[in-house]
Amino acid sequence: MMAESRHYRALSVETLPDRLGGVAEIASKIGGDASSWKVREVGDGNLNLVFIVAGASRKVIVKQALPFVRLVGESWPLPLYRAFHEHNALVRQAVRAPGSVPEVLHYDEPQAMIVMEFLERHVVLRRKLINGERVAGLASFVGKFCARTAFRGSELSMKSADKKADVGLFSGNVELPAITEALVFTDPYHDAEMNNHTAGLDPVVARLRGDAKLKTKAQRMLQRFASNTETMMHGDLHSGSIMSTATRSRAIDPEFAQYGPMGFDIGMLVANFLMAYFSQPAHRGEDASSYQEWILDVVEESCAVFESEFRRLWATERSGMLYPRALFEDQGHDSMPACEAVLAGIWRDAWSTCGIEMHRRCLTLAHNADFEEIEDVALRARLEARNLMMGAALVHADGDVAGGAGVCEIARSFNERDFL
Amino acid sequence: MMAESRHYRALSVETLPDRLGGVAEIASKIGGDASSWKVREVGDGNLNLVFIVAGASRKVIVKQALPFVRLVGESWPLPLYRAFHEHNALVRQAVRAPGSVPEVLHYDEPQAMIVMEFLERHVVLRRKLINGERVAGLASFVGKFCARTAFRGSELSMKSADKKADVGLFSGNVELPAITEALVFTDPYHDAEMNNHTAGLDPVVARLRGDAKLKTKAQRMLQRFASNTETMMHGDLHSGSIMSTATRSRAIDPEFAQYGPMGFDIGMLVANFLMAYFSQPAHRGEDASSYQEWILDVVEESCAVFESEFRRLWATERSGMLYPRALFEDQGHDSMPACEAVLAGIWRDAWSTCGIEMHRRCLTLAHNADFEEIEDVALRARLEARNLMMGAALVHADGDVAGGAGVCEIARSFNERDFL
Repeated sequence: MMAESRHYRALSVETLPDRLGGVAEIASKIGGDASSWKVREVGDGNLNLVFIVAGASRKVIVKQALPFVRLVGESWPLPLYRAFHEHNALVRQAVRAPGSVPEVLHYDEPQAMIVMEFLERHVVLRRKLINGERVAGLASFVGKFCARTAFRGSELSMKSADKKADVGLFSGNVELPAITEALVFTDPYHDAEMNNHTAGLDPVVARLRGDAKLKTKAQRMLQRFASNTETMMHGDLHSGSIMSTATRSRAIDPEFAQYGPMGFDIGMLVANFLMAYFSQPAHRGEDASSYQEWILDVVEESCAVFESEFRRLWATERSGMLYPRALFEDQGHDSMPACEAVLAGIWRDAWSTCGIEMHRRCLTLAHNADFEEIEDVALRARLEARNLMMGAALVHADGDVAGGAGVCEIARSFNERDFL
Repeated sequence: MMAESRHYRALSVETLPDRLGGVAEIASKIGGDASSWKVREVGDGNLNLVFIVAGASRKVIVKQALPFVRLVGESWPLPLYRAFHEHNALVRQAVRAPGSVPEVLHYDEPQAMIVMEFLERHVVLRRKLINGERVAGLASFVGKFCARTAFRGSELSMKSADKKADVGLFSGNVELPAITEALVFTDPYHDAEMNNHTAGLDPVVARLRGDAKLKTKAQRMLQRFASNTETMMHGDLHSGSIMSTATRSRAIDPEFAQYGPMGFDIGMLVANFLMAYFSQPAHRGEDASSYQEWILDVVEESCAVFESEFRRLWATERSGMLYPRALFEDQGHDSMPACEAVLAGIWRDAWSTCGIEMHRRCLTLAHNADFEEIEDVALRARLEARNLMMGAALVHADGDVAGGAGVCEIARSFNERDFL
C-alpha cells in the first residue's frame, strides 16, 4: 500500500492511474502501464464514485465511497466506513451464494475503496425492466441468492459465536441503515422535509397517512428491521442493485448490509418488480401486458425458487443451533413442518417490507426511474396510485397472502383499478 | 489500581484484605484498617465467588468471576469477561430503573471483580418463597423493573446509534447466553448429556419430547431470544436473582445480559413464581392455598404494573425512532392502539419463555430449590408434572392467554390435576 493511502482523498479520472498504478496488487491485475489505462467515471447511484479502468489485461471496477451523499451534496455527510461494511458483505455473499456477486480484487480501507471484477456486458436490471428486456434465469438467480444468503447467514447454519461476532461487526454500520429506517419505514407516512410525490396523488397520500393501523404495522416492521438480527441482509436489494446480461445476473452494492430479518431482501426486491409491473403501461402502451406477465412470472418463480432452495438447505445444511436434528430427525420427527413455520415468518416479513418499499419509492426522497421517467404526470399518478394502494393491501395482510402466486393475483387486480 | 491486578487471581477469605486494602478507592469506602475487615464467602450460586466484607464504615459485596462454572468445576471453563458485561448491565439498569439494583462501588476488569453495595437484611427471594414469607411491594418492583428496563433499553427510547453500539458491545457476551440457548431452549426436549429429572416423570417427559409442535414453538422462541435485539435483558431473572426484605426488593446478577426480546425477563420470572406456586403443597401442606394465592396475586399484579408502567413510558418517554409522534399524535392519531399491539407481542414472547423455563428447571442441569428440596420423590414428581404440563400449555397458546389473570387461572386449574 502506498504511503499516501493513509489519508483519504477522493479519486478522479485524472488522478486514478497515477494513484493506483503504484499499488502492485492492483496494477498487475489491470496490466500494462498505468498511464495507458482507460478510465471512465460511471457512478450513477446516489452515494459513491465508480470508475471503469481498462488496462492491458482486464477491466476492473474501482468503487470509492464519498464522505457525503452524492445525490444531495456535502450538506449530508456520510461516513466512509460504509466501504468497510460493503467489503465485508461482498466477501460473505461470495461464500454464501457463490458466483452471485462481483469478485473483490483489492480493498483499501483508508481510501474507502474496493477494486472488483468488471461485469462485462451487464446492465442495471432496472434499465432492462424499463426497456422491456427479458433476462433468462432471473428468477432462479433471485430465489437462490436470497435463500442462500438468508439461510447461511443465520443460526440455522452459522455457529452462534461466529454469528454474534458478525452482528457486533455490522452493528457499526449505523448511518446507512439509519437512512433506510427513516426513508423507507417512517417518512412515507408523514410530511417529512425531503419528501416529494407526483402531483395528483394527494388523495391517496392522505388515505395512507390517515390510516393509523397501516402506520402501526409499518412501525412493527421497522422494529423487526432494526432489531431482528436473523441473518446478514444485502439491505438495499432493489432492481438497481442487480446487473444482468440477457442470461445472467449478479447482485452489487451491499453497503447497507447488516443483520436483519430473513425476509427483507426478497420483499424489497419483489416490490421493485411490482413497480416495474405497474409502470409498464407508460413504457409499452398497448403492448404492455405480455411483458407485465413476464415480470409476474419472475416474481412467482423467484418466490418458488426461494422456498425450494430454503427447504433444500434446511434438509442438508442445518448445522447451527436452531431447530437441531437432536429435537427432530434424531427423535423420529419430521422437521419440515418447522421449516414451513419458519418460511411463513419469512414471508410475513417479506410482504410487509414489500408493501412499505412500494410506498417509499413514490413518496419520499429516492424515487424509481420506472415511474420517474414517465413524463405524462397524470398517467404517472394513476399508475403510482395502483402501486401505493397495493402496498397498503400487502402491509395490512399481515402475511396472509397466498405466496408469490397470490401476490401476482393481487397485482393483476390492482392493475385493473383506478384510485384517483 | 495495584500492579498485581493486571493478572487475574481468584480471591479468598484470607487474601482479600491484603489485596483490596491497597486499593484506595475500595479501602476508603469500607473504612478502617484492612486487617480488621471481616470477610465471609457467601457465594451460593453456580458461577462466582461472592464475599461480604465488613469494615469500620460499611459492608460491601465483592463479587469475582471464576474462570469455570463453579457448579461443575474446572472441566467447564467460562470466560472472565462476563464480569465486564455484568458491570455494564448493572450501570445501565441503575439508570433505566433507578434504585432497583445494587450500587456499583468499584469495578476491576482484569480481576473480573465488582465491588458493590451490600443489601442489608435482604434474602434471596426464592428462599422467602420456599419459606412462605410475603414481600410487600414485590409486584410493583417486578412490574416496574421489567417495564422500565424493557422500554428504556429499546429504540422506543434510545437513540438508534447508541442502541446499535450497545448491541455491538453485548454481542461479545457469548458463552453465558449460549448456556441459556442450550439449557433453556433445547436440552429439555431431548436426552442431553447433563439432564436429570425426578424419578417417575418419564411419562410426562416422553409426552413433551414427542410433541413436535411444542419443540417447533420452543425453537421459534430460541430464534427470537438469540436474534431479537429489542432491549437489554437481565437475561437470568429468576427468583434467585432477586433479593428482598419484607418490604423492598432488588435485582442482582445480570451477567447473562444481552439485547433480546422485551418479554423475556418477565416471562422467565413469572415461570419461577409459578414453580414456587406448584411446589407449595410440599412446603406448607394443608395451609398451602392462602400462600399460593398470594403468589398468584404477585403474578397478576406484576403483569398489571408492567402494562401500566409501559403505557406510561410510551406516553411520556417515547423519544426513539420507533412509533414516532410524527406518525401518530402529530397527525391527530391516538398511538395507544399501537402500544397495545407492542404489548401483545411482548406477552406472546413472555408466555412462551415462561412455559419453556418451567420445563428446563425440572428437566435439565440447573433445577430449582422450590422442587429440589422436596424429599418425598413421588410428591415432587406429582407437583413437577403439573408445572411441566402447564408449561406446555403456555408454549402452545402462542400468546393467546388472557394476561396475568389468565395465566393465574390456568395455574389454578393445573394445580387441581394429576398427570402421573
